[in-house]
Amino acid sequence: MLEKFFLPKSIAVIGASNNPNKLGYDIFHNLKRYGGRVYPVNVKGGEVQGVKAYRSVREIPEKVDMCVVVVPKKFVKDAIRDSGESGCKAAVVITAGFRETGEEGRKEEEELVKLARSYGMRLIGPNCVGVMNLNVGLNATFIKKEPPEGDVALVSQSGALGGAIIYKSADEGIGLSKFVSVGNMADVDFADLIEYFADDSETKAISLYIEGVRDGRRFLDALKKGILKKPVIVLKAGRTSSGARAASSHTGSLAGSFKIYESAVKQSGGLMAKTIDEMLSMARAFKLPLPAGRNVAIITNAGGPAVLAADEVEERGLSLAKLSAETLSRLKEFLPPMAALKNPVDMIASATGEDYYKATKILLEDPNVDIIIAICVVPTFGGMSLTEHAEGVIKAYREMGMRKPVLAVFMSGEVSEPAEKLLGENGIPNYRRPEDAAAAAYALAKYSEHLKRLKDVVS
Amino acid sequence: MLEKFFLPKSIAVIGASNNPNKLGYDIFHNLKRYGGRVYPVNVKGGEVQGVKAYRSVREIPEKVDMCVVVVPKKFVKDAIRDSGESGCKAAVVITAGFRETGEEGRKEEEELVKLARSYGMRLIGPNCVGVMNLNVGLNATFIKKEPPEGDVALVSQSGALGGAIIYKSADEGIGLSKFVSVGNMADVDFADLIEYFADDSETKAISLYIEGVRDGRRFLDALKKGILKKPVIVLKAGRTSSGARAASSHTGSLAGSFKIYESAVKQSGGLMAKTIDEMLSMARAFKLPLPAGRNVAIITNAGGPAVLAADEVEERGLSLAKLSAETLSRLKEFLPPMAALKNPVDMIASATGEDYYKATKILLEDPNVDIIIAICVVPTFGGMSLTEHAEGVIKAYREMGMRKPVLAVFMSGEVSEPAEKLLGENGIPNYRRPEDAAAAAYALAKYSEHLKRLKDVVS
Repeated sequence: MLEKFFLPKSIAVIGASNNPNKLGYDIFHNLKRYGGRVYPVNVKGGEVQGVKAYRSVREIPEKVDMCVVVVPKKFVKDAIRDSGESGCKAAVVITAGFRETGEEGRKEEEELVKLARSYGMRLIGPNCVGVMNLNVGLNATFIKKEPPEGDVALVSQSGALGGAIIYKSADEGIGLSKFVSVGNMADVDFADLIEYFADDSETKAISLYIEGVRDGRRFLDALKKGILKKPVIVLKAGRTSSGARAASSHTGSLAGSFKIYESAVKQSGGLMAKTIDEMLSMARAFKLPLPAGRNVAIITNAGGPAVLAADEVEERGLSLAKLSAETLSRLKEFLPPMAALKNPVDMIASATGEDYYKATKILLEDPNVDIIIAICVVPTFGGMSLTEHAEGVIKAYREMGMRKPVLAVFMSGEVSEPAEKLLGENGIPNYRRPEDAAAAAYALAKYSEHLKRLKDVVS
Repeated sequence: MLEKFFLPKSIAVIGASNNPNKLGYDIFHNLKRYGGRVYPVNVKGGEVQGVKAYRSVREIPEKVDMCVVVVPKKFVKDAIRDSGESGCKAAVVITAGFRETGEEGRKEEEELVKLARSYGMRLIGPNCVGVMNLNVGLNATFIKKEPPEGDVALVSQSGALGGAIIYKSADEGIGLSKFVSVGNMADVDFADLIEYFADDSETKAISLYIEGVRDGRRFLDALKKGILKKPVIVLKAGRTSSGARAASSHTGSLAGSFKIYESAVKQSGGLMAKTIDEMLSMARAFKLPLPAGRNVAIITNAGGPAVLAADEVEERGLSLAKLSAETLSRLKEFLPPMAALKNPVDMIASATGEDYYKATKILLEDPNVDIIIAICVVPTFGGMSLTEHAEGVIKAYREMGMRKPVLAVFMSGEVSEPAEKLLGENGIPNYRRPEDAAAAAYALAKYSEHLKRLKDVVS
């Protein structure tokens, strides 16, 4: 049912504008690049951004799949009625001024939903930033940048925070599949979207920024079911009393007790994140296979970052794997005498791409190792390129059938970007900070254990 | 005494090379851009990178202030002797293969230090990446990038991690005053550098990446004294048993009990950081005035990020300031009805640069407010520029005499970079993540309290 929001064949932008200072300008501008048919609707008629505009949705010569409503508040109801009459089944209402303004606004919002439902229409918003489907180049928001295509679905209850994450992801090359700013969640809410993304073949993990949920039971039900198919990562704002007060003033929803949320989400098998980076780090890990256990092996060309990673791994409740005798003797064969033949395996600064290949492969073959973290900083010898090191890791991962997760920590800023890109294209997420890789390893292990427990219960 | 390392009038690079695969190539290449006189020394004589080379330091027509030694290990002793005989008082030994290789290496290292001391020469390293003084454009390392000039001194016991931080800082525009890779700390150690940077007028905070310290008492003495003049932020690796084992295998130094370190550093008034970002976030804050208390006011144009910031502020043990009645009535005069007249002050998406100016100024005037966090995401109306918002914050900060700290959180990736730059140039550090700003606010409050306590004891 939500498919019309993500794969609309035709779209009406109600309130499309020629004025670059209006949101209706950006939204139509973003949508013009979309493959489907996109119609500007503007009461003045004429043209919008060079495209023939319609005075009403009713005038559009075909039934549109989705409408994006960005007219002033007093015209929103008419826009929904017109769209509903024309057979449109999906409305994204950008316009604000409803529930978040108080009692009267709440009533108007409820009437709007009632009206939409009378046409069998689903509604995202109001008071939201819009929707993106990066898998098909759909940007039905007024955000002026897009992240690369990826496999993480992001749902944000704060439009502006969602926007900030989109800008950040675009810069850091963090790929998303879908983005939804849910706004006031008058109709479509977290539960609907968990359900939809759980079945979305382009999405490997679902991440949610939550301030408050109205129907807790429905949310947890959806969460429990969704988690059977996809990991769900929750960044719940309002952990403290100050944060909770700020959240309830912001979205008008009760933030609720954080402890109750946390334990409910964890019991349902969801993962809790404390920061945006942690949420994205965890979500990006799920392009990898799930690990069989919690034993992590670290390889590196520099001691310091490996020490920091070891600390983070242990603090997350994971263990440094005890490498087998065979592994150690195989590593000894080709590593220089100064290398550390233990976990972390410090191959020292002279390590080549070939060394990364061999070491990764040997560790992947060690039955004591469940997860590998491959750290690389700019090598002191032979230029600035880290791509050969990335290639080594990729080759080993592929040759071993991509059966165990390998997380990369190529952490030298811009210098590591070509390597980072290469790793990403080959299914290995790169993390620029050891703590992010540890969070990702934790998320993989935790989700894997949850699924196993469920299987044990069933069998 | 350490001044010759940071402000040398003349430098010899012993082992300068024409071969781009050698470290002696990069070091000389980096130093050629330095204002002082830099002499390549190479046993083969001839020219190095177009500059007349000397076969020995003894042949250089003047006494050099500093030598950088990057010859193979067996020639290091001769290089030190020649430099010492020529009156050089500062040696940076890049070459590895000493204490970190075992008992024999340790002895050789001790002999080297003895030799250096017989000439009254101080020695940084061996087994290090080198030294930078960004305030004068000195890069005596083989790192191929430099961060902008700033006011944070960074000392790293891991050369590679130091390098990774340098690359990261260069990318993110994080300014440093000095950088020292201390390597094996055969002679110059953390204590010496704390002492030196405490008196360095270009340095406002000292940050240390530590794996293990040999002389704990000397270190703590230096820390206690240094902290009277400058804040010291410690990132101590080896928090867990896995990390501690990895650290002791890496630097050969005993990591020691983390708990003991932590409490000793904290008692001395030092600040502990858990990650690289936290360390840098804290250190960058000290271009600001110290706060009188722990009460934080948050202003924002978006609810979500302010909620996250409120959580982080409270979790750090700071409080959200209770705004005075006067403040609230003054804010009400110009903010739209939808704005939240409480702390955080949510000025909503339409907030202009003028609004940021007014709100920041009013909050700075409120006696209940000690610290301000000014959050800004891409405004939904009127283009992508956040510079007018930055200008508003800057104007208020300057008009109010820069007496209370203002931390910025302009968090929209690349889009916020011009604003970030402007803020930085005007003495306001920008943080891309709410948690980093909270860490910075905490560091300011904590250091301020430490100084006050010391004053109380004295008076």
